[in-house]
Amino acid sequence: MNYTPKSEIDMRISCFQKKLTEQELNGAFILLNSDMFYLTGTVQNSYLYVPVSGEPVLMVKRSLRRGKDESPLKNIVPIKNPKQIPEILSEFGYKDFRKIGFQLDVIPFNIYKTYKNIFPNAEFYDVSGIVKGMRAIKSPYEIELLRNAVSVIDKAFLAVPSFLKEGMLEIELAALFEAEMRKRGYSGCRTRAFNQDFFYGNVCTGDSGFYPSFFDGPVGGSGVSLSFPQGAGWKKVNRNEVVYIDYTCVIDGYAGDQTRIFCMGELNPRMVKAFEDAVYIESEVVKAMKPGISAEEPYFLALKMAEEMGYKDNFMGYKEDKVKFLGHGIGLELDEWPVLAKGFKMPIMPGMAFALEPKFVFPEGAIGTESSFIMTEDGPENMTKIPEIITYLK
Amino acid sequence: MNYTPKSEIDMRISCFQKKLTEQELNGAFILLNSDMFYLTGTVQNSYLYVPVSGEPVLMVKRSLRRGKDESPLKNIVPIKNPKQIPEILSEFGYKDFRKIGFQLDVIPFNIYKTYKNIFPNAEFYDVSGIVKGMRAIKSPYEIELLRNAVSVIDKAFLAVPSFLKEGMLEIELAALFEAEMRKRGYSGCRTRAFNQDFFYGNVCTGDSGFYPSFFDGPVGGSGVSLSFPQGAGWKKVNRNEVVYIDYTCVIDGYAGDQTRIFCMGELNPRMVKAFEDAVYIESEVVKAMKPGISAEEPYFLALKMAEEMGYKDNFMGYKEDKVKFLGHGIGLELDEWPVLAKGFKMPIMPGMAFALEPKFVFPEGAIGTESSFIMTEDGPENMTKIPEIITYLK
Repeated sequence: MNYTPKSEIDMRISCFQKKLTEQELNGAFILLNSDMFYLTGTVQNSYLYVPVSGEPVLMVKRSLRRGKDESPLKNIVPIKNPKQIPEILSEFGYKDFRKIGFQLDVIPFNIYKTYKNIFPNAEFYDVSGIVKGMRAIKSPYEIELLRNAVSVIDKAFLAVPSFLKEGMLEIELAALFEAEMRKRGYSGCRTRAFNQDFFYGNVCTGDSGFYPSFFDGPVGGSGVSLSFPQGAGWKKVNRNEVVYIDYTCVIDGYAGDQTRIFCMGELNPRMVKAFEDAVYIESEVVKAMKPGISAEEPYFLALKMAEEMGYKDNFMGYKEDKVKFLGHGIGLELDEWPVLAKGFKMPIMPGMAFALEPKFVFPEGAIGTESSFIMTEDGPENMTKIPEIITYLK
Repeated sequence: MNYTPKSEIDMRISCFQKKLTEQELNGAFILLNSDMFYLTGTVQNSYLYVPVSGEPVLMVKRSLRRGKDESPLKNIVPIKNPKQIPEILSEFGYKDFRKIGFQLDVIPFNIYKTYKNIFPNAEFYDVSGIVKGMRAIKSPYEIELLRNAVSVIDKAFLAVPSFLKEGMLEIELAALFEAEMRKRGYSGCRTRAFNQDFFYGNVCTGDSGFYPSFFDGPVGGSGVSLSFPQGAGWKKVNRNEVVYIDYTCVIDGYAGDQTRIFCMGELNPRMVKAFEDAVYIESEVVKAMKPGISAEEPYFLALKMAEEMGYKDNFMGYKEDKVKFLGHGIGLELDEWPVLAKGFKMPIMPGMAFALEPKFVFPEGAIGTESSFIMTEDGPENMTKIPEIITYLK
């Protein structure tokens, strides 16, 4: 089991406090599991207070025992009810709560109201952008964890030829693929946006790839139920059709993301051409991405190329169900910064990790590619080691 | 693929509207996927408005195509931005928005603020309790779906002897168990409470069962990473120790929940006795549960029995990490009403579905039982068909 080193936590807290100083806040409460893990190294049922200066205080409902074992923070104390927060913080000398940072993008209204009652004189400011901005730049320690996650997903893809069989159900293929990642430590994937339920990835074969979904990705899939209408469904996997596999793999908290294409038999020329075009678009985008490029530029470049190639109705979804991005940050959440999307002007800097996923959707199915990259001084480095080819099986 | 019949949706909408009338609201917005599925039969990126009287309007960002295919609602229309909501609803004759129902327990503060800006003169009232109360009583249609989910988890448990082997890792056992459910249609489990990330169930062997977690259950498990510190970990499965498997299985949206115990070899007498005591507590609680019983009574009864048996420090968790419930509702979410917990006085009525899970935690491991029940006029009926015994393997 990997423990986040104290030096990492110290660096993150210190960076966060610098931002709190710039915003003239007294401190901030961090409650969301992903950010909690980032700033403490543990995920407990707990409340983290980071003062603008001084040691943070982690107040733990459950489990105090694990919180103390797992986090390098100095002040880890028990709590039964959030009403005790002012008293506990006061014991640490923190008494001024006029301007408090809060994660207003994710905290449910009723929890916000609880804190408003506890701190009736406080004004609450959204600090999610601060943490998301910090998290967008990965440290060398985090980059190693990302590389490891990507290597696990590579292993799962390399195993596909051993279990992909004609006539099996998409959901059976998905179950076997997921087990390859799970047995190596996959433990579920966090998304930040409201309602973006995401439990598994995506296996779409043939025209299953034409199903869009509520999930904010270019390819949906029918799903196995209308309650979770995304990903693998009940369709049989046939010869001579595209087998599209797109999965996130989270190991030690960090997500790699990858899509590869398989086919038993032969694929029709239009799909083969589309795949080659997707790989070409990706390679041109990678060439164009130098440090400092605005995050929307790669999307616009890819869109322009796709339209010139004649894929106006097919790029990143079909017609009205298209999404307006080319890729997304990867890390402790699947929907991280930078988003490579229209309107997203954050410069892409060394240390930023992201997936690029040029894809096309046709009535006969979805095809394209996706790999996980880390930005370096020289441009994006592909962390994915298996080649971007269609793997043909007998 | 199972489609929710129009008669079900009509009944639910009509019941919801009756409650809106009682609360003197003009209507309510429903956004959360689980409640959205309950009231529309589909899960899209969309906004549902249910007026106090008249036809509901489902406004769909993505995918309109699927929304129309899947939901029996009459008014399903496209939308690009929530700002268009007043204009769209006005076309349907809905123009009075002084008192609006909203899901304040789950909607993030920033989304609440968006709606507050769109409807500056509206007051917002929490209607989550209404929907949760409705959902607590299952229709005969829903009970059939629950029975089916429970039958799938039964099949997964029956398969355990075919793959449980000495020396395998907990996570390998978990991957195989999950694949059994996944290939039969498991597609992830929804929880309502903030931060209750729940991707998989729980495999704890030997002293792994002593690990508590942030997750609100009696038994934690080490997990495979500190980022997701719950469930199966990297420990080897040994002979003569408890193999505790607790999984939720969601099929067609509905969750069954179940725990069974396995052992390769022999279990020490204290653990065997604790298991028998847990089963006995469950049977006594079931006998005592007649329609109308307060939801906290079964917990108090079980707690009293457990303490009299000498399990004060072990019942529903170890010492300070205990949880204060005996069971929980099951349905479209894992943490449904009724909660069989201290302070929860809702009467348990026919049609309510719940899991009972008397469990004990010792330093050498966790043990106990869990099955899924439906309340009838005569008391709880156990939907789980496999027996509550320790399954010994060679």
